[in-house]
Amino acid sequence: MLKPLGDRIIIEQVESEETTKGGIVLPGSAQEKPQEGKVVAVGSGAVKDNGERRPLEVNEGDKVIYSKYSGTEVKFDGTEYLIIRESDILAVVN
Amino acid sequence: MLKPLGDRIIIEQVESEETTKGGIVLPGSAQEKPQEGKVVAVGSGAVKDNGERRPLEVNEGDKVIYSKYSGTEVKFDGTEYLIIRESDILAVVN
Amino acid sequence: MLKPLGDRIIIEQVESEETTKGGIVLPGSAQEKPQEGKVVAVGSGAVKDNGERRPLEVNEGDKVIYSKYSGTEVKFDGTEYLIIRESDILAVVN
Amino acid sequence: MLKPLGDRIIIEQVESEETTKGGIVLPGSAQEKPQEGKVVAVGSGAVKDNGERRPLEVNEGDKVIYSKYSGTEVKFDGTEYLIIRESDILAVVN
Amino acid sequence: MLKPLGDRIIIEQVESEETTKGGIVLPGSAQEKPQEGKVVAVGSGAVKDNGERRPLEVNEGDKVIYSKYSGTEVKFDGTEYLIIRESDILAVVN
Amino acid sequence: MLKPLGDRIIIEQVESEETTKGGIVLPGSAQEKPQEGKVVAVGSGAVKDNGERRPLEVNEGDKVIYSKYSGTEVKFDGTEYLIIRESDILAVVN
Amino acid sequence: MLKPLGDRIIIEQVESEETTKGGIVLPGSAQEKPQEGKVVAVGSGAVKDNGERRPLEVNEGDKVIYSKYSGTEVKFDGTEYLIIRESDILAVVN
Repeated sequence: MLKPLGDRIIIEQVESEETTKGGIVLPGSAQEKPQEGKVVAVGSGAVKDNGERRPLEVNEGDKVIYSKYSGTEVKFDGTEYLIIRESDILAVVN
Repeated sequence: MLKPLGDRIIIEQVESEETTKGGIVLPGSAQEKPQEGKVVAVGSGAVKDNGERRPLEVNEGDKVIYSKYSGTEVKFDGTEYLIIRESDILAVVN
Repeated sequence: MLKPLGDRIIIEQVESEETTKGGIVLPGSAQEKPQEGKVVAVGSGAVKDNGERRPLEVNEGDKVIYSKYSGTEVKFDGTEYLIIRESDILAVVN
Repeated sequence: MLKPLGDRIIIEQVESEETTKGGIVLPGSAQEKPQEGKVVAVGSGAVKDNGERRPLEVNEGDKVIYSKYSGTEVKFDGTEYLIIRESDILAVVN
Repeated sequence: MLKPLGDRIIIEQVESEETTKGGIVLPGSAQEKPQEGKVVAVGSGAVKDNGERRPLEVNEGDKVIYSKYSGTEVKFDGTEYLIIRESDILAVVN
Repeated sequence: MLKPLGDRIIIEQVESEETTKGGIVLPGSAQEKPQEGKVVAVGSGAVKDNGERRPLEVNEGDKVIYSKYSGTEVKFDGTEYLIIRESDILAVVN
Repeated sequence: MLKPLGDRIIIEQVESEETTKGGIVLPGSAQEKPQEGKVVAVGSGAVKDNGERRPLEVNEGDKVIYSKYSGTEVKFDGTEYLIIRESDILAVVN
């Protein structure tokens, strides 16, 4: 599996045309729209001035909204993932 | 519901043509005008140098003025919201 | 009333054609000229590295000079105001 | 009188064509040339990381050299001044 | 051998056309795709504000994913390497 | 005389065509070449985060090499000087 | 001799066409290729936040690889040198 570094997070993208129950409608053709995904791995946290790491605010399994054109796409074991920094995560869906 | 991260805030936009009582007139056609909205969720705060979080200055339910073209729009449960950083909030309406 | 956030200040603009007594002549047509105004509200201060707030140097009622094209204009209760950061204030008129 | 904020300084410009005794020749037509002036007011100092203010290095009455196109010009009581940041002052003339 | 400085890492590039077992498919023609490689040397770490060094998160022998156009290519003893900063490493492959 | 502020240094330029003994040949026509000069005055030092000043590394009388197009030229008592920041000094000639 | 300031280093360039034994082949015509050189002098170190200096990681006599177009070339006593910042050094050759 992939282990992201620092404040990076790995997300499995949710198809943007689907409408999740009580959820977010994100037509696939609309540009500059936020995107929904599921967190599959989180880094060990951003480094503070004193050299310690600050744990991330999101956890494995969280459903998150992020800016569609953030991060870098990778393909691993046939699945596409997005490696993104925590600061590009807009909100967690509860 | 949506939970914003860090110093982000979720705002429900107020229609810009309406005039609130004793309030702000913001014609919808005017560009670069500030916009009025209601805070529906706030993040856990910006991270300080020592790794602690500083609570935000705005609270749920506050009426705020923000720069119209700040943040990212999301649609959730049929309502449009704006996810914005606290630094893009100009003032609270008392 | 409006309460500015952080290091922001709300100013009521003084008509630029008038000449205040022993004061500043600022012809309205001249571009890139500084502008005179009166402070009507101040934020709770800029955030320091340790998370505390540093009180602002200007107070309600101060007459100030600021750069004409700084800040954001808002209309509230029929009066036009400017929301501006303290760092865009050039000087206080005593 | 005008009281500059923070690390700002108010300067009364010296005519650039004149040659001060044993001083600096600065032909008025030359562009990008440094300019000579007299300090008439200084701010309370730049803010340090801990929130305290560091007093400025220049004092009222100092003759200084500064970059000609720095700062903002204001007219007050019929005299033209320049409001400039301390970091735009190049040297003090002793 | 080569010893990278600070937060730099030396990577031996893996041929991008090959498909590692249960691994990442990275067609060589695709631009802006992440790239897989093996860490062959790591620097002594980034410098913290207090002058100490923070050890790197990756170790010799790690398989890593990095942005294809990061870093600087060098040839040493007939082998091509990439010298890259740790912040350009996206994830470690476990 | 001129007293530079902060981390600034005043340099008297050495004619670039001359070849100092056992020294540096800097043809005057070559662009983007470093330049040799003599330090005639130094500022009180750059300000540290805690508000104290760090003394400069160069001293009055030092022969230094600096980037030709750095700094600001001033004429004082008939001599041309360059006011330059310490960070634009490349090396001291011993 | 030349004494570099701060985090600067003086390098004597190695001819890029030659192949050092068990070393690096760097054809002179290739652009944007890293370059090999020998350190002949090092500065007293970069300044830390507390005003102290952090000693450099490279020492006199080290063979280093650096980015070809970094730094500033100077000629001294008939030899060409490069004055470069430590952060532009990619690796030390052991």
